[in-house]
Amino acid sequence: MRHDPARLSFEIEARDRGARRGRLLTSHGPVETPAFIPLATKGSVRGMSSREVKGLGFELVLGNTYHLLVAPGPERIEQAGGLHRFMAWDGAIITDSGGFQVFSFAYGGVAEEIKGTGRKMQGLAATLGIEEEGVRFRSYRDGSELMLSPESSMSVQASLGSDIALVFDECTPFHAEREYTARSTERTHRWLHRSLDWHNRNGPAGQAVFGIVQGGTYEDLRLQSAEQVSAAGVDGIAIGGTLGRNKEEMAQVLGFTVPSLPVDAPKHLLGIGEIDDLMRGIALGIDVFDCAVPTRLARHGMALAPLPDNRFRIDIRKGYAAGRRGPLVDGCACTACSDYDIDYLNYISRSEELTAVRLLVEHNLSYMEQLMAEARAAISSGRFTAYSDAVLAGKTPWLAAEAT
Amino acid sequence: MRHDPARLSFEIEARDRGARRGRLLTSHGPVETPAFIPLATKGSVRGMSSREVKGLGFELVLGNTYHLLVAPGPERIEQAGGLHRFMAWDGAIITDSGGFQVFSFAYGGVAEEIKGTGRKMQGLAATLGIEEEGVRFRSYRDGSELMLSPESSMSVQASLGSDIALVFDECTPFHAEREYTARSTERTHRWLHRSLDWHNRNGPAGQAVFGIVQGGTYEDLRLQSAEQVSAAGVDGIAIGGTLGRNKEEMAQVLGFTVPSLPVDAPKHLLGIGEIDDLMRGIALGIDVFDCAVPTRLARHGMALAPLPDNRFRIDIRKGYAAGRRGPLVDGCACTACSDYDIDYLNYISRSEELTAVRLLVEHNLSYMEQLMAEARAAISSGRFTAYSDAVLAGKTPWLAAEAT
Repeated sequence: MRHDPARLSFEIEARDRGARRGRLLTSHGPVETPAFIPLATKGSVRGMSSREVKGLGFELVLGNTYHLLVAPGPERIEQAGGLHRFMAWDGAIITDSGGFQVFSFAYGGVAEEIKGTGRKMQGLAATLGIEEEGVRFRSYRDGSELMLSPESSMSVQASLGSDIALVFDECTPFHAEREYTARSTERTHRWLHRSLDWHNRNGPAGQAVFGIVQGGTYEDLRLQSAEQVSAAGVDGIAIGGTLGRNKEEMAQVLGFTVPSLPVDAPKHLLGIGEIDDLMRGIALGIDVFDCAVPTRLARHGMALAPLPDNRFRIDIRKGYAAGRRGPLVDGCACTACSDYDIDYLNYISRSEELTAVRLLVEHNLSYMEQLMAEARAAISSGRFTAYSDAVLAGKTPWLAAEAT
Repeated sequence: MRHDPARLSFEIEARDRGARRGRLLTSHGPVETPAFIPLATKGSVRGMSSREVKGLGFELVLGNTYHLLVAPGPERIEQAGGLHRFMAWDGAIITDSGGFQVFSFAYGGVAEEIKGTGRKMQGLAATLGIEEEGVRFRSYRDGSELMLSPESSMSVQASLGSDIALVFDECTPFHAEREYTARSTERTHRWLHRSLDWHNRNGPAGQAVFGIVQGGTYEDLRLQSAEQVSAAGVDGIAIGGTLGRNKEEMAQVLGFTVPSLPVDAPKHLLGIGEIDDLMRGIALGIDVFDCAVPTRLARHGMALAPLPDNRFRIDIRKGYAAGRRGPLVDGCACTACSDYDIDYLNYISRSEELTAVRLLVEHNLSYMEQLMAEARAAISSGRFTAYSDAVLAGKTPWLAAEAT
C-alpha cells in the first residue's frame, strides 16, 4: 500500500463493528463512503445528464476503459481535456481496466455467470488471443484488431484522466478449475506489477491506482493474491473475479478475503450491487460498490423496492401494478415516486415510452444513493446492524432508519 | 363561435400586423401565445417527466385520443382522476380527436404525405371501414376491433378530461381529388355537429372544444369549411388536413383560410411545426402549433439549430461534429448546450446512448420554447417582422432578438 495524498487519501471517520464510514479524497473532490458507484460505461449514465447524476448525490462514477477505447478512443477524449470535461462530470471518476470485458468475450456465455453481463457484445466482438503480453480482440465497432495489456490499459486510463485507475487483470469465471485459476492469478499478479510500473513512469500525477485481488473461490489463492496486491504499492484494493455460484459462497469468499487486506485501505467490490450484497459488504468493511443492476433493471421495467423476497425489485409491467394508486416506494424522493402513481409507471413502461426508462433509472439510482446515505448515517451513530437488519427484512429504508 | 369563460377564454394582448400575442385561459391555467405544444402522445413527452416539461416553460401539451383509447383506455385514466393527474401534468392539455390516426391507416403510406407521421403503426393497425357512423379499426395492441366516431371520440376526450377537445374529423391526404375532398369535408361538417351535440349534452363543464377546418388545398372548400366551423359554436378553430405538397402551397392555403376565420378566435395549426412554418404561421395570426418534429428528430440524432439552409436542423452524428468544441447552439439554455461540447453529443448519439436522445429532446423542445418566447416578446414590442426575418435568415434567435 502507498499513501500519497496528492493522488488519493482515505479517511475513516467512524467504525461500527466491521463497517466503516469514510471519505475518499480524490483529485476531483471527496467521495463519502460506503458509496454506490453508478456506471457511466460509455461516458454517460443511462438516460441521465451528468448534472442530474450529481443532483442525486453521487460523487463518483465508473467509466469503462474497454468501451471508451473502442469508441471514441482515448485520443479524442484526451483532446477534449479528459473524461471529466468530455462528459461534463466534475466529480470523481474510477475507470476499470477493460480486463473484465475482454475476458467476458473469451469465456462466452460463461461471462453471464461471473457478473451477469457481457451478453450484448457476443457475436459483435471476439477475443483473438490471451497471451502473457495481453489480450487481442476485435472492435465491435469496425472489426479492427485491438490489444489490451497492462501497459495499454494504463495508457488508456491515463488519457481518460480518471481519478482512480484499476490495474489490468484476468477475471476468471467460477467454472474455472483450481489449476487454471492459480495460473491466471499468477499472471494477474505479473500484470499488476506491469500496470504499476507503467503508471509510476507515465501515469498522471493526480491519478490513483487500485490493485485487484483475484483467486476465484479458493481461499489460499485469495490470500496469496491479497498479500501480493497489498504489498504492491497500490492506493486501494478492488476485489474482482468470481465470488462463487450464489450469495452464500460470495459471503464465504469475502469472509476470508477482506480480513486479509490492510484495514486502512479503501476497498472496492467490483460489479456487485444488489441491495442485500451491499448491506453484507458494508458490514464486512467494503467501501465502494459498482454495479450495472440499477440501470439495467430500469430498461426492463424493473424498479428497486424494499422486497427481500423478490430480490429487492418489482416488475412494474405486471398486471398488479395497473390501476394501483400510490408511489412505487413510500418516501422515496425521486421524480417517479414523488409525482406518479404506480399505475402510470406500469402504463408507460408497457408502452415502451422512453420516459419510463428515464424515470426508473432515476428511481433506481436515487434509491441506491438514499440507501447508502442512510447506511453512512447509521454507521456514524453505531446502529448499522439494526439498519441493515431492517433493510434486509424489507422495511422501507427511510422508515427503517427512523425506527432504529 | 361561442365565448364561455368557464371553459376557455382568449385574450389578445398585442398585435403586430397579422401576428398577435395572446393568452388562452384554460381550466388548468393560462397559455401564453403564440405557443408551441409538445406532444405527449401516449401521456408522456418523450423521455421527459411532466415537471421537466413544465420547467422548460411549456403550459400546454397534446395528448392523443387514438393512442390513449388503445392503451390504457379511457376508463383507467378516468379512474386515475383524468389525464392531468394520470400524467402528473398540472398545466393545460389539448387532445386530438383520433381522426388523423385512423385515417392515416386507411391511406397507408400516403399518411406520410399529410404530416410525415403514421409510419410506425402500419402493419400493426388497420382501418376496417370508414362509414357515416365513424371509423372501425383494429387495436395495434391486441387486435380487437375498436370504433371512433364523433360521439365516441368526444366521450374518450371527456374521460381524459382535457382542457381543449378537438372534434372528430376526416383528415384528407393531398392526393385526394376535389370530389372526394368535397364529400369528405361535408361529412367532417356533419361530424362537427355530432361532436358538438354530444359535448353539449355530456361534455365536462370545464372542457372547451375546437372545430377543425378541412377542405384540402381547394379555396372554395376551405372557405365553406371555415364558415361552417365558425358558425358552429366552437371555442376555437384548428386548421387540419393537407396544406399542400410544399411550403409554398401551405402558405397559399393558410393565406386564404386564416383570413376567413373570426379574428378573435384562438387558432391552432395542426401538426405543423418546423421553424420557418412557425414564423410564417405566427405572421398570419396562428396562435398554437403542435408537431412531432422536435421530439422525433431527437431520436435520430438531429438537433434544431439556426440553419435555414438545412431545414433548421443539424445531424450531430455526422463526422464534422466529432471533435468539435463549443455548444450545439450558442446561447441556448438547455442542458446539452450549457454543459456539453458538440463532440460529446456526437459520440453519445453515435453510441446510441439513451442520454443522447434525452439531451436532444430537451434541446429541441427548449429551443422551440425559447424561440416562441422571443416571438411573443417581439410581437409585444412591434418588431415581429424583424425578428422573424432574422430567424429565417439563420441568426441565433437570442442574438436576433437583441439585434432587432
